[in-house]
Amino acid sequence: MVSRTAAALAAASPAIAEAHFRAEATPYHPIERPDGYLNLGTAENRLLGDLLTAWAAELPPVTEQETRYAPLHGTALLRERIAALLTGTYGAPVDPEHLVLVSGASAALDVIASVLCDPGEAIVLPAPYYGAFDTDLGGRSGARLVPAPLRSGTGFALELEPIDRALRLAARAGATVRAIALATPANPLGLVHPADLLRDLVELAAAHRVHLIGDQIYAHSVFGSRPFTALEAVGGERVHTVWGFAKDFGLPGFKAGVLHSTDPEVLAAARALAYFAPVSTGTQAVLARLLADPVRTAAFLAENRRRLAASCAAAAAQLARHGIGHLPAEAGCSLWIDLRPMLPAPGFAGEQELWRTVADRLRVNILPGAAFHSPEPGWFRLCHPLDAGLVAEAVARLGTLPRRTGAAAAEGSPR
Amino acid sequence: MVSRTAAALAAASPAIAEAHFRAEATPYHPIERPDGYLNLGTAENRLLGDLLTAWAAELPPVTEQETRYAPLHGTALLRERIAALLTGTYGAPVDPEHLVLVSGASAALDVIASVLCDPGEAIVLPAPYYGAFDTDLGGRSGARLVPAPLRSGTGFALELEPIDRALRLAARAGATVRAIALATPANPLGLVHPADLLRDLVELAAAHRVHLIGDQIYAHSVFGSRPFTALEAVGGERVHTVWGFAKDFGLPGFKAGVLHSTDPEVLAAARALAYFAPVSTGTQAVLARLLADPVRTAAFLAENRRRLAASCAAAAAQLARHGIGHLPAEAGCSLWIDLRPMLPAPGFAGEQELWRTVADRLRVNILPGAAFHSPEPGWFRLCHPLDAGLVAEAVARLGTLPRRTGAAAAEGSPR
Repeated sequence: MVSRTAAALAAASPAIAEAHFRAEATPYHPIERPDGYLNLGTAENRLLGDLLTAWAAELPPVTEQETRYAPLHGTALLRERIAALLTGTYGAPVDPEHLVLVSGASAALDVIASVLCDPGEAIVLPAPYYGAFDTDLGGRSGARLVPAPLRSGTGFALELEPIDRALRLAARAGATVRAIALATPANPLGLVHPADLLRDLVELAAAHRVHLIGDQIYAHSVFGSRPFTALEAVGGERVHTVWGFAKDFGLPGFKAGVLHSTDPEVLAAARALAYFAPVSTGTQAVLARLLADPVRTAAFLAENRRRLAASCAAAAAQLARHGIGHLPAEAGCSLWIDLRPMLPAPGFAGEQELWRTVADRLRVNILPGAAFHSPEPGWFRLCHPLDAGLVAEAVARLGTLPRRTGAAAAEGSPR
Repeated sequence: MVSRTAAALAAASPAIAEAHFRAEATPYHPIERPDGYLNLGTAENRLLGDLLTAWAAELPPVTEQETRYAPLHGTALLRERIAALLTGTYGAPVDPEHLVLVSGASAALDVIASVLCDPGEAIVLPAPYYGAFDTDLGGRSGARLVPAPLRSGTGFALELEPIDRALRLAARAGATVRAIALATPANPLGLVHPADLLRDLVELAAAHRVHLIGDQIYAHSVFGSRPFTALEAVGGERVHTVWGFAKDFGLPGFKAGVLHSTDPEVLAAARALAYFAPVSTGTQAVLARLLADPVRTAAFLAENRRRLAASCAAAAAQLARHGIGHLPAEAGCSLWIDLRPMLPAPGFAGEQELWRTVADRLRVNILPGAAFHSPEPGWFRLCHPLDAGLVAEAVARLGTLPRRTGAAAAEGSPR
C-alpha cells in the first residue's frame, strides 16, 4: 500500500508520456519500417540537432570544480546568464537572485504550485490548456485544477470573462482559489496573447487577490507577426513565470527549468523546494557555456524561429492540401487541427474513438483535445518541428480518414 | 503567504547546507587567506579530482539523441549499467527495471518516503543519524521522524532494542509507523553494520510490518576490514535502498540518485514521482560512459577506497597527536570526534556554544552532534577526504580548545 498522493500520481500517468514512448519504441521509416509510428504527439523541437551537435563538440569538458556541490537552486553563473537572456527577451529586468533553477519546467511548475497551494486549494486555467499541467501543478501540491472554458467560435482565443466566471463559481462553491495559470504563448494553440489582454489579466488576478502563473516556455519560439509580451513587461505583483531550455533550445532531455518571481517569501520557499529537484552541475556548466556569447545565442534563437516558421508553414500547407482545417499559429511547436468532420460519433466518446483509429490504424501519434481539456470535441494537437517528410506522411494518413457528409459546412470554421 | 509545507521547509533550511556555503565563500589559504574557513563539515569526497578530470577529458561530446526526451526515471542504458555495478557490489542481482533514477540521493529518499507515508505517518531512525534525513525523508512527504537513540557507551553501534522500543512507543502513542530508515554504512559514524545485525533488523521490520529504507550511498566507500553487507544480500520484502554517485564517485554536483525496490506498487509510484525530479540526459550520458568499462570502474573505486583509508588514517593520526578522541571508522567520509572534554557548559547548550566557538573563532566548519540527533552532547562530525594539509590545520586548531580539568578521565572513552 502506498501513500494517497503517490497512488493518485501512479494512477494518472500523463497520456502524453505514454503515447510518446509507445510511438518512439517503433518509429516509422519509409523503407525499414513503413508500418511504424509517426510521432507528432510530443512538443519536441527536433529542428536544431545539427546546430546543437556542432556546438556540443566545441564545449570544453567539465572541470573538477563543476562536479562539486553548488547552490541547489542553480549556480550563480548559470542564473546570471539566464537572467541576462530573459532580460533581453522580456524587455524587463530579470535579477539572477529572482531565479530558482530546478530539473525541468515541470518541476518549476510543481514548485510554484506547491509554494502557493495547500492541498485542496484551487488554480483556474483557461482551457484548452497544456494537459500535463494537471500533473505539474496538481500532482504533488494537491492543488485542484479548475478549467475556464474558452469559446470555439473565437478560435479559443484568450478571454477574461470565462476566467472571471470560473473564479467566481469556485469561490461560491467554497473553494480557495490561489492562482490563475496559463501558457503564454499558448500551448496547444500556438497563439501569442495580446499585451492589452495580459495587462487586463494581471488586473483581474489582482482584483481577485490570486497569483498569476505564466508558463513562458515558448518565449523564444515566436515566429508570427504579433510580438511576444512577457508578463514581466506587464508588471504587477504576485506574478510568477516559468521558462526552460526544452523548447527554445531544443534540449528537452536536459531538464532545466527556471522559476522567476520577485516575491521574497515565494522565492525563499521555492529555493527550499529546489532542494528536491536540483539540476546537475555538469548540465549547468554546459548550459552556461551555451549562453556565454549573447551574439551567438541570439543568432541560434533567430535560426530556431526561422526553422519553426518554415516547419509550421510546411505543415499548414500539407493540411490544406488534404482538406484539414487548423487554427493559425504564431508560436510554439504545434498546430491545433480540426478533425471535427472526421468524428465517427458525437462528443468526446467520438473523439476518443477517432484517437484510437488514428493511433492504431494510421499509426500516427497526435493528442486529442480531451488531453488538453478542450471545451469542444474533435480538435487535436499536431506537433510539426521534425522531419518535413514525416509530417507530410502523417498528414497524408490523416487525410484518408472518412468524413461525415457535409460535416465541415454544418459546423463552420472558427476565425 | 505560502503553503504550510513550503513555509516549514523554508524555515528549516538544513544547517549542513548553510554552514557549507558560508565556509566555501571565504576558504582558508595558508598564504592568501590564513584567517579563512576550513570546511570539514561537508561529506564531500575531494580525493578524486585528478582521476575525474582525466576521465572527463576523454569522454565524447553528447549526441543529439542524448538531448531528447527519455524515460523520466532514467535511461535504459544508465539503469542497466548501474544495475550491473550494484549487482557486483551487493552480491545480489539488481534488475534495471527495479531502479528509479532521480536528481540526487536526497530526491530518492524523498521519493521513497513520499511513496510510503501519508502526512503525519512516522519513520523510526536509529540516532545519531544523517541530519539531512529530516528534510529528505520528512520535508515534502510530511512524514514524522522518530529517533531511536543508540548508546554512547557502545560507541553508538547499531542495536535493535532501541529501534524496537521506539516502534512500540510510537505505536502506543497512536502513530502509524511506516518504516525504519538508516544509513548503511552508517553516517556520521562511518561504521559498517554486521551482516547478522542487518538480518535481525530486516526481521524486526517484518515483525512490526514496517518497511526498511537503507541509504547505501557509501556502499563503495568501505575501507576497513569488515565487509559491507547490502540489504539486498540479506533479502526480505519491503526493503528499499538508495544509492548515488555523490560519494563513491566524488560527483556530488551531478545529483544522480537511484532508488532500488522490488515491490511493483512502490516502483510504479516511485516512477510517477520521478517525473518531478528527473536527471538531465546529458549527465546520464556522462555517467553511463563512466560505467561503460567495468574493469576501469572497479579500478577507480578501488583507488577511491585506498585514498579514503589513507585520508582517514592521516586524520586519525592528527587527532591522536592533539589528544582528541574519535570512534574508529571503516567507511565513508567522516570521523565522529569526541569534544566532550572541551564542552564549556553541560548539555546541548554547551555543544552549541562550542560549535559557535569552533566556527567563529577557530574558523573550522564541523557539524555538532545535535545536527545528527546525537543522544549525547559533545560529539562532532569531521569530514576528512580533502587536502591533508587542510585537515592537519583544522585539527591543530581544534587542539587549542581549552579542556575542563580531568574531564576526559571522568567521562571515559567509548570503545
